[in-house]
Amino acid sequence: MKRTNYAGNITEEYLNQEVTVKGWVAKRRNLGGLIFIDLRDREGIVQIVINPETAHPEVAQAADKVRNEFVLEVTGKVVERASKNEKIKTGGIEIEATTIEILSASKTTPFEIKDGVEVLDDTRLKYRYLDLRRPEMLANITMRHATTRAIRSYLDGEGFIDVETPFLNKSTPEGARDYLVPSRVNKGEFYALPQSPQLMKQLLMTAGLDRYYQIVKCFRDEDLRGDRQPEFTQVDLETSFLSEEEIQELTEGLIAKVMKEVKEVDVTLPFPRMKYDDAMNFYGSDKPDTRFELLLQDLTELAHTVDFKVFAEAQAVKAIVVKNAADKYSRKAIDKLTEQAKQNGAKGLAWVKFENDELAGSVAKFLADKTAEFQTELQLENNDLVLFVADTLEVANAALGALRLTVGKQQGLIDFRKFNFLWVIDWPMFEWSEEEERYMSAHHPFTLPTKETQTFLSADGHSKDSELSKVRAHAYDIVLNGYELGGGSLRINTRELQEEMLKALGFNLADANEQFGFLLEALDYGFPPHGGLALGLDRFVMLLAGKDNIREVIAFPKNNKATDPMTQAPSVVAEKQLEELSIKLANNN
Amino acid sequence: MKRTNYAGNITEEYLNQEVTVKGWVAKRRNLGGLIFIDLRDREGIVQIVINPETAHPEVAQAADKVRNEFVLEVTGKVVERASKNEKIKTGGIEIEATTIEILSASKTTPFEIKDGVEVLDDTRLKYRYLDLRRPEMLANITMRHATTRAIRSYLDGEGFIDVETPFLNKSTPEGARDYLVPSRVNKGEFYALPQSPQLMKQLLMTAGLDRYYQIVKCFRDEDLRGDRQPEFTQVDLETSFLSEEEIQELTEGLIAKVMKEVKEVDVTLPFPRMKYDDAMNFYGSDKPDTRFELLLQDLTELAHTVDFKVFAEAQAVKAIVVKNAADKYSRKAIDKLTEQAKQNGAKGLAWVKFENDELAGSVAKFLADKTAEFQTELQLENNDLVLFVADTLEVANAALGALRLTVGKQQGLIDFRKFNFLWVIDWPMFEWSEEEERYMSAHHPFTLPTKETQTFLSADGHSKDSELSKVRAHAYDIVLNGYELGGGSLRINTRELQEEMLKALGFNLADANEQFGFLLEALDYGFPPHGGLALGLDRFVMLLAGKDNIREVIAFPKNNKATDPMTQAPSVVAEKQLEELSIKLANNN
Repeated sequence: MKRTNYAGNITEEYLNQEVTVKGWVAKRRNLGGLIFIDLRDREGIVQIVINPETAHPEVAQAADKVRNEFVLEVTGKVVERASKNEKIKTGGIEIEATTIEILSASKTTPFEIKDGVEVLDDTRLKYRYLDLRRPEMLANITMRHATTRAIRSYLDGEGFIDVETPFLNKSTPEGARDYLVPSRVNKGEFYALPQSPQLMKQLLMTAGLDRYYQIVKCFRDEDLRGDRQPEFTQVDLETSFLSEEEIQELTEGLIAKVMKEVKEVDVTLPFPRMKYDDAMNFYGSDKPDTRFELLLQDLTELAHTVDFKVFAEAQAVKAIVVKNAADKYSRKAIDKLTEQAKQNGAKGLAWVKFENDELAGSVAKFLADKTAEFQTELQLENNDLVLFVADTLEVANAALGALRLTVGKQQGLIDFRKFNFLWVIDWPMFEWSEEEERYMSAHHPFTLPTKETQTFLSADGHSKDSELSKVRAHAYDIVLNGYELGGGSLRINTRELQEEMLKALGFNLADANEQFGFLLEALDYGFPPHGGLALGLDRFVMLLAGKDNIREVIAFPKNNKATDPMTQAPSVVAEKQLEELSIKLANNN
Repeated sequence: MKRTNYAGNITEEYLNQEVTVKGWVAKRRNLGGLIFIDLRDREGIVQIVINPETAHPEVAQAADKVRNEFVLEVTGKVVERASKNEKIKTGGIEIEATTIEILSASKTTPFEIKDGVEVLDDTRLKYRYLDLRRPEMLANITMRHATTRAIRSYLDGEGFIDVETPFLNKSTPEGARDYLVPSRVNKGEFYALPQSPQLMKQLLMTAGLDRYYQIVKCFRDEDLRGDRQPEFTQVDLETSFLSEEEIQELTEGLIAKVMKEVKEVDVTLPFPRMKYDDAMNFYGSDKPDTRFELLLQDLTELAHTVDFKVFAEAQAVKAIVVKNAADKYSRKAIDKLTEQAKQNGAKGLAWVKFENDELAGSVAKFLADKTAEFQTELQLENNDLVLFVADTLEVANAALGALRLTVGKQQGLIDFRKFNFLWVIDWPMFEWSEEEERYMSAHHPFTLPTKETQTFLSADGHSKDSELSKVRAHAYDIVLNGYELGGGSLRINTRELQEEMLKALGFNLADANEQFGFLLEALDYGFPPHGGLALGLDRFVMLLAGKDNIREVIAFPKNNKATDPMTQAPSVVAEKQLEELSIKLANNN
């Protein structure tokens, strides 16, 4: 029989009609001589009722036989339910089964198919097809689709053309580590999976497409954290002839549409703009969570006046004031915060409590004679806790930025219903890499520097106080609730400037040509001004779904060892496969 | 200045308005003291006019300096054109430039940016960004977007959920050759890029998604032909609980929507259904081009009566009759056809011409005394040409099927405006592989055999006359103008039958578990009846665009050596990259 309705959609509207539903047994129970079956499909659950006394023997038999997760086809009449369940859409009715066909049987599942079930992560992944049956997971996957649908609809409407760029690309050492794909036809050579379609989308601009978009898988072979996966999905777009502000405006429209369609939330446009320096100074982060205050305060000047070497000699002394919370922070709690400050590079964490109009705590004795000044400067009230970091400005910002988030959560300062979008603008072009001891691109080497600061490009990038640090980029990140949702920039569109940029990044011309020669050559043939943006789809949907791990919004993710416990990928392959590719395993395997 | 209009969209509607356009110089010429510039953007071309005598000196200077493919920003007034060009949308107007800004200069391009230009394939690919500027290429890429947009809109409307499946998968020896990706974290192990998301989409059905779709890249490391690429795009869909006919009906709706939106063509639904056996017998192909007749005719019975060993002893004697064309086929032309017949496995090609009510030609003398019978059987008229192949049925069909296409083209029998869709149904489950000397899946090992023929599954597949040949599949291919556009099937949804199928294909249980264990296990937990389909997007768009190579509808394709002449992918990578992956090149490199 053909299904007439999704189980989860049958309401009083269908009373006395005959319906056929198909789905999974969520629950089966005997009650007062009747058999009740909750039948589940993607739209929800409907209650089936069988009276073994009066039903056709085959129906009674089938009803007796079914167990959880059996797949059934049930036909019957929709009747009013005696005891209604207001919580679900179908709660007012039930179906009196006239036929039941068992379409597929099921063994007992390794975990119960219900929301909030406690299962090991790898068990969930091994049986992902069962995990996805849980309504909350299905809702996440469905929300992901609703999100991409809204994105496409918006971008289609704005004249963007969806273009597929290649997955088998050239490997470039710049940036993160590539996933490589050995070539069989071109022995000894490798393709690389794309880390992003950056250069391809720029080439589409010089091809004259004007507005490009793609929702596309990207790949980075990096160590995995909670919100990283070997493969991830990017909403990638690029435009010609638009200004930074026009691209931001288009993006805001896109996000507003998603928020409206997916969350029924009206966001206020335009989003706030925050300068990179302000983000760092006030939030200690380039992706500030603006759902709560607890701003970083600069006390350097005052701190330099106290008789305490750590403060007096530090490049920067900064603080956050935790209002009316001194009594909530034991020594042990503060030790934990100190630990976190150290993890973020600080040598330690100084703190005082303001109690009975006096300072108490680790550094209170040094500050005592400046109590009034500190009180004024920090607007202290009794029972406030002050956390100080004295260090370089970078370290003070980073450490207090991290503490701000911890304390914000601890103190319940965050309104989790909020969606605080903002733009972080006015980025430095380069950031200092302690590891490599040189300045590297803060975004990527194709970002357009501002006209006023291009002159600093000729500086030497191998010293931290290089004037390279003064170069500013036409770059912008979009931030949501403390997460970097995406970022973009205007790009360089002349060969001269692009070569200067690559030189500033330490490329010699031969290497640059080897890697980016096709882009450099393209710049010779009428390359239009252009710029764009990429959004991390996984993270966006994760935040929309209110989850804290992107695995919750990916159908078949990898675990944190980059393996799939279900398929056992990756796996050992046949010797013949390697031979065909002209590669061998290194001996240390 | 902000662009006010696309160049290609400015019509008489804008007369006397000031507009700002941005685009590429398609042509620049001096005429009667005036300078004319054709400015091109993605929507078309508009004519700019500058009078150096009266224009602002800067405008005159710029106009003098520009060359083809310079990128300009031009502001000016829309005026009526003296000599109108009816062929283009903007042909009634021109823009009197009041400002011209050169946004980007261009060297002379390696080939002219215009339709129909003669360039080597690899040169087009090396400068693909210039090739894509040609209006016909831009139209192809735009048509591809229009196609996917129509597909998504239809499937969204039909309740399909777009789900992304992984690119880093487990390698399985079954099917085509995998592209492998070495794992850095799991040394000595490899991922495989998906040949199709077949198993993942089946698992999404048991996960309860009910209707899944994805427009997704797939990968096969096979030798390349004109319409093959290492990576290709599939419109992939899967449904639960639907019959073969219901899935076909959904697909027909999808195609009708694409035809309407992309080509403004109303197709007649439902599409014709043709049995696999009929396709082979009448068209000599499992993807018949039904835009013309020229059907294969079975003459075996009559041929067995003639005194000609080749005919009398052949398993099958089949023929096509080329109407009123005997005089057009010289001996040389027929030799060419013979060559083609041989390439398709035939030992030779017999032929007769029917002239003056008599048979003439290679085998005429053998058939002479049966002239009347042949005339009646083949409904011969004077000047008809008959081509015979006497061989096994398979070879006769294959050879004549190929000749049919050649002759159809030669005789102008094909109406190229037609879009002839049809379903080929009632497929055999297995096809004999001469190479492997065993029966293999005609589609794939997860295809559901018909109930009536499941009993033959236990036959041994290592002999060609095995009863395995009798197993029929719930499989269906959709064919357009002689191309396989896609195919699908109902799938097996019980472990018992799936294991029997794998056994019939020669798997032992351990191997089957190693490769498909996760699917087999999933079949234990309430796997619903399901089925689906995949369409080849590249090929579909190629046919919509009236091209004969899929490279024409792919933005950045590989050449037939699987390389990209633009980026030079694939390429040699750094020793360090291989070390990190614990692989090395085999010595023969």
